[in-house]
Amino acid sequence: MAIRIDGGVTAPKGFTAAGVHCGIRRNRTKRDLALIVSDRPASAAAVYTQNLVKGAPLTVTKAHLENGIAQAIVVNSGIANTCAADGIEKAEAMCALAADALHLPVNDVLVASTGVIGPSIVLDPIEAAMPALAAAVSKEGGTDAAEAIMTTDTVKKEFAFRVTLGGVDCTLGGIAKGSGMIAPNMATMLCFLTTDAAIDSALLDAALHEVVGDTFNMLSVDGDTSTNDNVILMANGAAGNAVITEKNEDYAAFVEALHTLCADLCRRLAKDGEGATKLLETKVYGAKSVEDARTIARSVNRSSLLKAAMFGADANWGRVLCAIGYSGADVDVKGVKVSFLSKAGSVTVCENGAGIVFDEDVAKTVLTEDEIVIEICLSDGDAKATAYGCDLTYDYVKINGDYRT
Amino acid sequence: MAIRIDGGVTAPKGFTAAGVHCGIRRNRTKRDLALIVSDRPASAAAVYTQNLVKGAPLTVTKAHLENGIAQAIVVNSGIANTCAADGIEKAEAMCALAADALHLPVNDVLVASTGVIGPSIVLDPIEAAMPALAAAVSKEGGTDAAEAIMTTDTVKKEFAFRVTLGGVDCTLGGIAKGSGMIAPNMATMLCFLTTDAAIDSALLDAALHEVVGDTFNMLSVDGDTSTNDNVILMANGAAGNAVITEKNEDYAAFVEALHTLCADLCRRLAKDGEGATKLLETKVYGAKSVEDARTIARSVNRSSLLKAAMFGADANWGRVLCAIGYSGADVDVKGVKVSFLSKAGSVTVCENGAGIVFDEDVAKTVLTEDEIVIEICLSDGDAKATAYGCDLTYDYVKINGDYRT
Repeated sequence: MAIRIDGGVTAPKGFTAAGVHCGIRRNRTKRDLALIVSDRPASAAAVYTQNLVKGAPLTVTKAHLENGIAQAIVVNSGIANTCAADGIEKAEAMCALAADALHLPVNDVLVASTGVIGPSIVLDPIEAAMPALAAAVSKEGGTDAAEAIMTTDTVKKEFAFRVTLGGVDCTLGGIAKGSGMIAPNMATMLCFLTTDAAIDSALLDAALHEVVGDTFNMLSVDGDTSTNDNVILMANGAAGNAVITEKNEDYAAFVEALHTLCADLCRRLAKDGEGATKLLETKVYGAKSVEDARTIARSVNRSSLLKAAMFGADANWGRVLCAIGYSGADVDVKGVKVSFLSKAGSVTVCENGAGIVFDEDVAKTVLTEDEIVIEICLSDGDAKATAYGCDLTYDYVKINGDYRT
Repeated sequence: MAIRIDGGVTAPKGFTAAGVHCGIRRNRTKRDLALIVSDRPASAAAVYTQNLVKGAPLTVTKAHLENGIAQAIVVNSGIANTCAADGIEKAEAMCALAADALHLPVNDVLVASTGVIGPSIVLDPIEAAMPALAAAVSKEGGTDAAEAIMTTDTVKKEFAFRVTLGGVDCTLGGIAKGSGMIAPNMATMLCFLTTDAAIDSALLDAALHEVVGDTFNMLSVDGDTSTNDNVILMANGAAGNAVITEKNEDYAAFVEALHTLCADLCRRLAKDGEGATKLLETKVYGAKSVEDARTIARSVNRSSLLKAAMFGADANWGRVLCAIGYSGADVDVKGVKVSFLSKAGSVTVCENGAGIVFDEDVAKTVLTEDEIVIEICLSDGDAKATAYGCDLTYDYVKINGDYRT
């Protein structure tokens, strides 16, 4: 059982971080460069966007992660370093600057960028800021790092959890940034996770993939998959637990804690989606397979019609059924039950694939809350899944349609 | 070469139609029941929604079309006759009422409905109106039928084309209704096509599937596939051409004319999409396969980010590249060229997968028009495809979020 504690990426032992304004962005009050550092080499794993158009930092990080070991991550916001001819070279140079300042092998430094697609990233401000940034890393710097990776996110995202592994207290922490729009291009989802648990790097990779499939890959603000999406997890073993080398009880507890951390980050990212006023969690139960459950949850969660209805607090179950029907999943539509839940109560609106009489006032009260669960119970099996999303609002259109006009 | 002529579904010889207000809708000025009739049995073919949640009329129409012959279509707007326990029975009863009034075998009558999902359809007003409706069918009634199938469409959609087949003038006509929202549920795309050309029913089916794959299946307002989408084509042979029984020159000319008709209906449907201010046509050239071309065109056309940018007249090529990259198609992203075209001119914004310098003022002028072509040239082969869509606007959110509040 994972317990929430204060802090983020520096909550685990042996991790420090810093975030500064170096000048990639013009706004001097906005931090734009971050470092996350482990005091010793850490096992590391990553999951990358499936978009064929990929940011150069992802290619470099992937190469540096071939041995499963890393000790630092350098991240900038402002420019995505994507679709630029000199991207790989510049991403390598960012790693080299951080490696020099931290006295690490360049191969142990990972890199990530978020911001405008197209422009070549300018290294001068990064080079000038790096010595001070490296000198500034501290336990307190985690929040500065969380701020430095933000783009038009309206709140910073950082969480930490404690879990007991082999009788030893271990900590997991994370920061993330989401769905804010950077002129003239699209959002990036970046997430950096740290833990002082000791775990074999192959198992770390397995745990990360397992959890990401169930959390970040179930997250959608508008269905557009960014070019720079990236989740990186470092485990430095500083907690002193017996190294997890097989899929035992400790592994299961670690995965559960990682899942809790990532799900909370997802909720925060979804709720802060562009223009969003509401967090939507679509929970599917009773599906034939996990893949079917995920397909249905994602389809419902992504429906523009339903997202707009949720903005209007309209218990529009037909749109839920419609999105289940066209999802492509194997489902008996005559066995579908749909309910809406929030802290104000719950209302069931559809049973056996058909509408039932319900109290519209209760439904309106339930849906007027800012965190809504769309619960879908199927009669096809016992697989389940959750998708994370948000409503579709005037502000989404404003942010994405008007920002250069 | 097909030539546009006046009229719609009654332009071909031997077809008549009518549309009246029968009372399914409360608004007495809105026609809600239509009949389309051929003066002789016609070859007929249909394409149905792929949504697993299907309106009852589709099931009945499919059964009545098993022999490939039909002579009339009865259509109502107001209630979709979907997700109601007595749906099949009521859809059969609608066919029987029309068959009685027209003195036809019930099996030769097809049925379609659009409107609210859930409620049971009430037959009384249909029964009361049917004798007068059947008596009223005429050449002039095509437009009344086009109006009767509308929901919140802001303009009626009807077109007709003339084409020479085996030296004989033949006519194709069609009416369609699209993306208007009916409380409390989703839109339906209905299209009814008629022709006086003589063509074997298996070839008619082949022609319709070929053309729909390239037109209606490439149309998206918001990516939500309705439960009642349906395209029906009747060919009664009244023009007197030699019956088309093989894939010869006449078949090719017929397919081309049918394509022209359906593409024009798609453009009209897309431009009148919910809240839309602009028609977007995404044209892909140089793809590895037709399937890749269609996948890319649909992905770009459906991107909420790009649709919002088009609303804002923002030449946001990164969003085009992003949607190409996540489409799932096999594409060399380093070989992508993107241009925006309209009647105000054209501007190329991306070459070899990277941005190029372009005149922002020219781009703004091009994109301020109400019909935009997004042209994507790939370097992977010679397959091509076009997708039809519209921009994402405040009014889309208003129509779909606020209409019950």
